[in-house]
Amino acid sequence: SANVVLISRAFRHQFVIPDFQGFTKHIEEFYWKCKSNTEGKVAAYIPQLARMNPDYWGISVCTIDGQRFSIGDVNIPFTLQSCSKPLTYGIALDQLGSDTVHQYVGQEPSGRNFNELVLDYNKKPHNPMINAGAILVCTLLKTLVSPEMTLGEKFDFTTNYFKRLAGGEQLGFNNSVFLSERESADRNYALGFFMREYKCYPDKTNLRECMDFYFQCCSMEATCDTMAVISATLANGGICPITEEKVLKPESIRDVLSLMHSCGMYDYSGQFAFKVGLPAKSGVCGGILLVIPNVMGIFAWSPPLDPLGNSCRGLQFCEELVHVFNFHRYDNLKHASDKKDP
Amino acid sequence: SANVVLISRAFRHQFVIPDFQGFTKHIEEFYWKCKSNTEGKVAAYIPQLARMNPDYWGISVCTIDGQRFSIGDVNIPFTLQSCSKPLTYGIALDQLGSDTVHQYVGQEPSGRNFNELVLDYNKKPHNPMINAGAILVCTLLKTLVSPEMTLGEKFDFTTNYFKRLAGGEQLGFNNSVFLSERESADRNYALGFFMREYKCYPDKTNLRECMDFYFQCCSMEATCDTMAVISATLANGGICPITEEKVLKPESIRDVLSLMHSCGMYDYSGQFAFKVGLPAKSGVCGGILLVIPNVMGIFAWSPPLDPLGNSCRGLQFCEELVHVFNFHRYDNLKHASDKKDP
Amino acid sequence: SANVVLISRAFRHQFVIPDFQGFTKHIEEFYWKCKSNTEGKVAAYIPQLARMNPDYWGISVCTIDGQRFSIGDVNIPFTLQSCSKPLTYGIALDQLGSDTVHQYVGQEPSGRNFNELVLDYNKKPHNPMINAGAILVCTLLKTLVSPEMTLGEKFDFTTNYFKRLAGGEQLGFNNSVFLSERESADRNYALGFFMREYKCYPDKTNLRECMDFYFQCCSMEATCDTMAVISATLANGGICPITEEKVLKPESIRDVLSLMHSCGMYDYSGQFAFKVGLPAKSGVCGGILLVIPNVMGIFAWSPPLDPLGNSCRGLQFCEELVHVFNFHRYDNLKHASDKKDP
Amino acid sequence: SANVVLISRAFRHQFVIPDFQGFTKHIEEFYWKCKSNTEGKVAAYIPQLARMNPDYWGISVCTIDGQRFSIGDVNIPFTLQSCSKPLTYGIALDQLGSDTVHQYVGQEPSGRNFNELVLDYNKKPHNPMINAGAILVCTLLKTLVSPEMTLGEKFDFTTNYFKRLAGGEQLGFNNSVFLSERESADRNYALGFFMREYKCYPDKTNLRECMDFYFQCCSMEATCDTMAVISATLANGGICPITEEKVLKPESIRDVLSLMHSCGMYDYSGQFAFKVGLPAKSGVCGGILLVIPNVMGIFAWSPPLDPLGNSCRGLQFCEELVHVFNFHRYDNLKHASDKKDP
Repeated sequence: SANVVLISRAFRHQFVIPDFQGFTKHIEEFYWKCKSNTEGKVAAYIPQLARMNPDYWGISVCTIDGQRFSIGDVNIPFTLQSCSKPLTYGIALDQLGSDTVHQYVGQEPSGRNFNELVLDYNKKPHNPMINAGAILVCTLLKTLVSPEMTLGEKFDFTTNYFKRLAGGEQLGFNNSVFLSERESADRNYALGFFMREYKCYPDKTNLRECMDFYFQCCSMEATCDTMAVISATLANGGICPITEEKVLKPESIRDVLSLMHSCGMYDYSGQFAFKVGLPAKSGVCGGILLVIPNVMGIFAWSPPLDPLGNSCRGLQFCEELVHVFNFHRYDNLKHASDKKDP
Repeated sequence: SANVVLISRAFRHQFVIPDFQGFTKHIEEFYWKCKSNTEGKVAAYIPQLARMNPDYWGISVCTIDGQRFSIGDVNIPFTLQSCSKPLTYGIALDQLGSDTVHQYVGQEPSGRNFNELVLDYNKKPHNPMINAGAILVCTLLKTLVSPEMTLGEKFDFTTNYFKRLAGGEQLGFNNSVFLSERESADRNYALGFFMREYKCYPDKTNLRECMDFYFQCCSMEATCDTMAVISATLANGGICPITEEKVLKPESIRDVLSLMHSCGMYDYSGQFAFKVGLPAKSGVCGGILLVIPNVMGIFAWSPPLDPLGNSCRGLQFCEELVHVFNFHRYDNLKHASDKKDP
Repeated sequence: SANVVLISRAFRHQFVIPDFQGFTKHIEEFYWKCKSNTEGKVAAYIPQLARMNPDYWGISVCTIDGQRFSIGDVNIPFTLQSCSKPLTYGIALDQLGSDTVHQYVGQEPSGRNFNELVLDYNKKPHNPMINAGAILVCTLLKTLVSPEMTLGEKFDFTTNYFKRLAGGEQLGFNNSVFLSERESADRNYALGFFMREYKCYPDKTNLRECMDFYFQCCSMEATCDTMAVISATLANGGICPITEEKVLKPESIRDVLSLMHSCGMYDYSGQFAFKVGLPAKSGVCGGILLVIPNVMGIFAWSPPLDPLGNSCRGLQFCEELVHVFNFHRYDNLKHASDKKDP
Repeated sequence: SANVVLISRAFRHQFVIPDFQGFTKHIEEFYWKCKSNTEGKVAAYIPQLARMNPDYWGISVCTIDGQRFSIGDVNIPFTLQSCSKPLTYGIALDQLGSDTVHQYVGQEPSGRNFNELVLDYNKKPHNPMINAGAILVCTLLKTLVSPEMTLGEKFDFTTNYFKRLAGGEQLGFNNSVFLSERESADRNYALGFFMREYKCYPDKTNLRECMDFYFQCCSMEATCDTMAVISATLANGGICPITEEKVLKPESIRDVLSLMHSCGMYDYSGQFAFKVGLPAKSGVCGGILLVIPNVMGIFAWSPPLDPLGNSCRGLQFCEELVHVFNFHRYDNLKHASDKKDP
C-alpha cells in the first residue's frame, strides 16, 4: 500500500523534491568528492571498531515521501553507537512526556571545553545527546516505562521501536561489541556513579542493568540504507515514510530535532549549527544522521573520525550539501539566488 | 511604489499569511493575555531606564510582504540596548565578510553559568550576541571599515544602515542614555581591557573611541513599529519588505539568524531555542526582536525583565505564539494537527 | 627502655615542654570550653557512622619526647577514614620515593569550589589528601610495592606500618564499616573509573582490588590515644617517641606535613592554614590529626561535623590552642608577647 | 646604637646563626652556581623593564640580629613590582586590623589554572598577593586609612612605612616606570572595573586614584641590600633588626607570612610551598623576597623570568638553600642528619 501512495503521488507530481534525479546527481558528485578525503582515524578504543575498514564510505537518502537513493557502502552493518541517542530520547519522550523526561535531564549545550563537568547548574546531565544524558534516558526507559519488564523484554521493546522507525528494515545486534563496550567503559561507569552520587536517577534504579541497557542500545547494528529511513521518519514528524506508520508524536520529534541541532555533533555542535544549520547526530561508528525537516533524511557513513569524534567524510558531505542547496535553517528561500532549491 | 507591490500581491492572493486578519486576532488575544502579567523589574542600572513605565506593552508585526499590525504602546521610543547587537553584527558581516569577522569573534554559545569567562578556548569572545563580542564587532566596524571616518561619520554611517533596515522609519538617539551608559559601564570597560590584554582587537584600535561607538549603538532609539520592520527585513533575507531595498546580503542574514537562534536570549538562550525554536534577540530595554524566517518579523516590548534580563511579557508572548502556530523551527508542517498554519 | 629514655630526660630537665603540667591545664580548659559546642551533624552516609554518639569528645597529646596527656573519650575505637590518608601517603613515599609517587599525584591544593574537577592540569589527582589522590596512593602501594603480595598480605604490611607509627598500641579493623563503605561509594567509584580513563594508574593495576584496599585503609580502627602517638611520630621526623623506632624517613615526613598544611582540612584548608598555621588532617569520623612539628602530636575526636566535613569541636580546639600558644607556623617566637611559649 | 646591640650580642655569642661566616660561604657557593643559569626572559611588557641587563644577579642576607652579607649586583636599584604586595598588605593589616581587611579580600590560593576567575566564591579577590587583591588592598589604604589625605600624602605615608621596614635605607620612586605601568595595564584596569561592578570596594572609592596608588607602590625603587632588611623585618615579627623599631605588629606579620607561604610565587606557589617550604614573594622585576621566620631575611634578584613569572636564578637559589640547610618549614630539626643547621 505504501507503493500505491508513492505511485499516486508520482502521478500527481507532488514530490517534495520534484526533480529527484537531478538532486541525486549532486549527491553522487559530493560522494566522489568526499571519497578522496583520507583524513581522520578509525575509533580504536575497542578492537571491533578498530578493525573497521577506513575506506568504507556510503550515503543513503530517503525523502519524506519515500523516494530513495544510495551510493557506496550502504549495506555494510555497523553499530549505531551515539547515533542511537536521539532514538532512545525520542522513545522516552513519547512514553513519558517531555515534562517527566526533562525533570531528569537538561536541554542545553554543555559549553565547549567544559565537557568534564558532568552535570549542569541544576545537577542534571546537560542534554540527552551526551553520554551522561543518554545513560540517564536509558535509566528512565528501563525504570519508569513498564518497570515490570525484564532487561531482555525492555531490549525487545526498544528494538521494536527502532525497527518501526526504520520501516521494518534490517536491524541487528552485535554482542561482541556490546561485551567490549561494557569492558572498556571507564568514562561511562564514572558518569554513572557520579550521577548516582548526585541522586540523578529515579527511585529503584538498578544502575548496573541500566548501564547494560545503554551499552546494548549503542550496540544495535544497522546499515546506511536503514538509517536513512530512520532519519526520514524524524524529518517527517515521526511518521515513517515507507510504512506511513505514526511511530513517534510530532512534538517528541520537535524536541529531538531541537537538541540534535544544538548538541548533536560533540564539541563541534556550535560550529555545525552555524555552518550547516541542520539537526544531526554523529557517532564514533563514523555515522552522521542528518535530518532536513519536512524534506528528507540522510545518513552518511565512513569510519575515519576527526579529533572531535565526527566522521571526516560525513562532515565534508554535510558542508558540501548546504553549500549547494538552500537547506541551512536560515537560508533565505526566495532571495539567495546562488543556492539551489531542489 | 511599495504600495503598488502590496496591492498587486493582494489582488493575486499571494500573501505569505493568507488570512492576515484571522492571524492578528490571535496576536491581539496574546496581547491581552500577557498584559495581565505583572512579573519582573524594570532595569535600574541607569536612571533613564529605571524611570520607564512598567505598564508599557506593545507588539508590532510586519510580514515579508509588508502586511503590518500593531497593538499597545507601539509608538513610544526606547533605546535599543542589546537589540542593536544583531544589527551591528549584520553590518560587519556585510562590509567585511564572515571570514574576517570570525577571525575575531566566535560562533558558539558561551555555556550557561560560565559567562564570567570572557573569552573562548581560542581567546576570542564567544559570539557577537554577548557584550564582549558586540564590543569587538563595534571595534571591527570602527577600525576596519573605512578607518578614515571620524567617530561622528562612523555613527552616521551606522545609523544610515539601521534606517534602511527600518525602511526609512523613525530612528533617534538618546544622548542622556549614552552618557549614563558610559558612566556606569564597569563590566563593559573590564571586558574591553581584558580583550586588549589578550590582543583581541585589530591593530590601531582606539579602545576608548570604540567603547563610545558601542555605547552609541546601544543608545539608538526606535519604536516597536520601527523595530518590527527591521525584524521583517531579517526575516526576508536582508531585503526590506517596505522599500524592497536589499540592505544586507542573504548570507549575512543567515549568520545573524543562526547566532540569534543559539545565543540571543542571554542565559535563557538554550531553553528558548528548545521551547520557542526561533531566532530572537532581547535587550534590557524590554524588547524582543523575534524573526520567523521567510514569514515575518515581530517586535514585542515591555520594560519589566526577569532575572536573566528578558522581558517577562515578551517571553510569554513568544511562548503563546509557538503554542498556537507551527512556527517552531522543528514543528512538523504536515502532521502536527493541533497547531495552526497561518 | 623507652621509659628509661623518658626518665633520664626528666632528670636532665630537657623536655620540649618544660612545664608539661602547666600546659595540660590549658588543654583541659580548652576541652571543657569545646565540650559545650553542640554544633554539627554526625556523618550519616553509612549506618555505622550515623550511630556514633554525638557527645563523644576526646583529646590526646603526645610530645616528641613521649610525655602524654589525655582527657575525655580517648579510648573509644573509631575508624580512621580520611585520617589514614597522610599515613598511606607517608608509607608510599618511604617505599617508592617522592619522585615516583609524584609522577602519579600532584602536590597542590585543588582550589576551593573546584573540587568537582577530578584531575589537575597535568591530568593527575591534585594531591594525596583528597579522595582521588588517596585512591591513587593506595594503587601505588598495591601495584608497585612488592606486587607479588596478595591483597591480604598487603593489608597486613600496611597495618604493620600503622602499628609501628603508633608505637605498638592498639589498632583494629572494622569489617562492617568496610563493607558499608564499599557499598555506598558512588563518588569514589566514579573517581576510580575517571582516573582509569585518563590512564592515571601504573600498568597492571587491578582497580577493584585497589578500591578495596583503599576502603580497608579507611576502615582501620584506633582510639584517640593511639592516634596521638601517630601524630607525635609525624611531629618527630618519623621516629616514634614511644619506641624510638625510625618508622618513616624525615624527608617523607616533610612532604606529608607540607601537604597536610595546604590540603588537609577539605575545603577549609586555606582558612585553616591562615588561622591555625599547623599541618592537620581531618576525617569524617570526627577526628583531627594535628601536628606541631618538633614539639608534639595531638589528636582531637568528636563525631559532629560542620558542613565542610571537619569536626566542630576539633576545629574549635585547634583555634583555641593557637590563640593561647605560639604554635602558628608564623607566630613570632620572640616578640609576640601576648602568646605563651610552653 | 644598633651597632652597640650588635657588638654586645657578638660578645655574648648569641647570634641566631652562630657561624655566620661558614654560612655565607655556602651562600657564595650558591651564588656562583646560579650565576651560570642563563634561562628565562626579562619582562618586556614595558620598555623600562625590557632594558634590564639579564646578567644582573645579586643576593643579600640580613639576620634578625642584624648580621649582613651580600654578593653580586646588590646596589642596583630596581622597581619593586609585586614584591610590594606583602608590604602594602602588612600596612593595611596594621592600620585596619585583619577583620576589616578580610571583609574585602580572601585568604586562600586561587587554584592553579583558574587565575582567570577574578573573584572567589564570596565575590572577593582571592588573596592580597595577586593583582586583584593587591589593588583592593591599595583601595583600602587609600579610602579607609586617613581618607582626608591627598594621593600625594598617602604616597608619602606609605613610603615612610617602607623606609621604616628597611631600617631607613635608600628607597626611591621610578616615575617613568609608573607612567609606563599605567599605560600598559589592560589586565589591571579590567580587574579594577570588574571589582567595581561586583561592589568589591568600600564606599567612596575613587577607582582611578586607587589604581594610580597601586601603580605607584609597584614603582617604588630599592636595591637588593635594602630589600634584605625589609625581609629580615618580616622574619623578626615586624621589628627592624637594624633599628630595633617595631614597624608592624607580630600578628600582622603572621598573616603576611601565611599568605606569602601559600600564594606568593604566582602559579608556582603550591610547588614552592612543597619544595622550599618558606614564605616568599616574587615580582616581575626578578626579585624574590624570602623569609626564614625567626632567623633571617634574604633577597635574591635577577631579571630573567621563567614562564610563570619567577626569577630563574632566584628560584634555583631558594632550592639550593633548602637542599643544604634545614630551613624547610617541615624539615625535622633533630633527625634529618643530612641537612645542616646553621
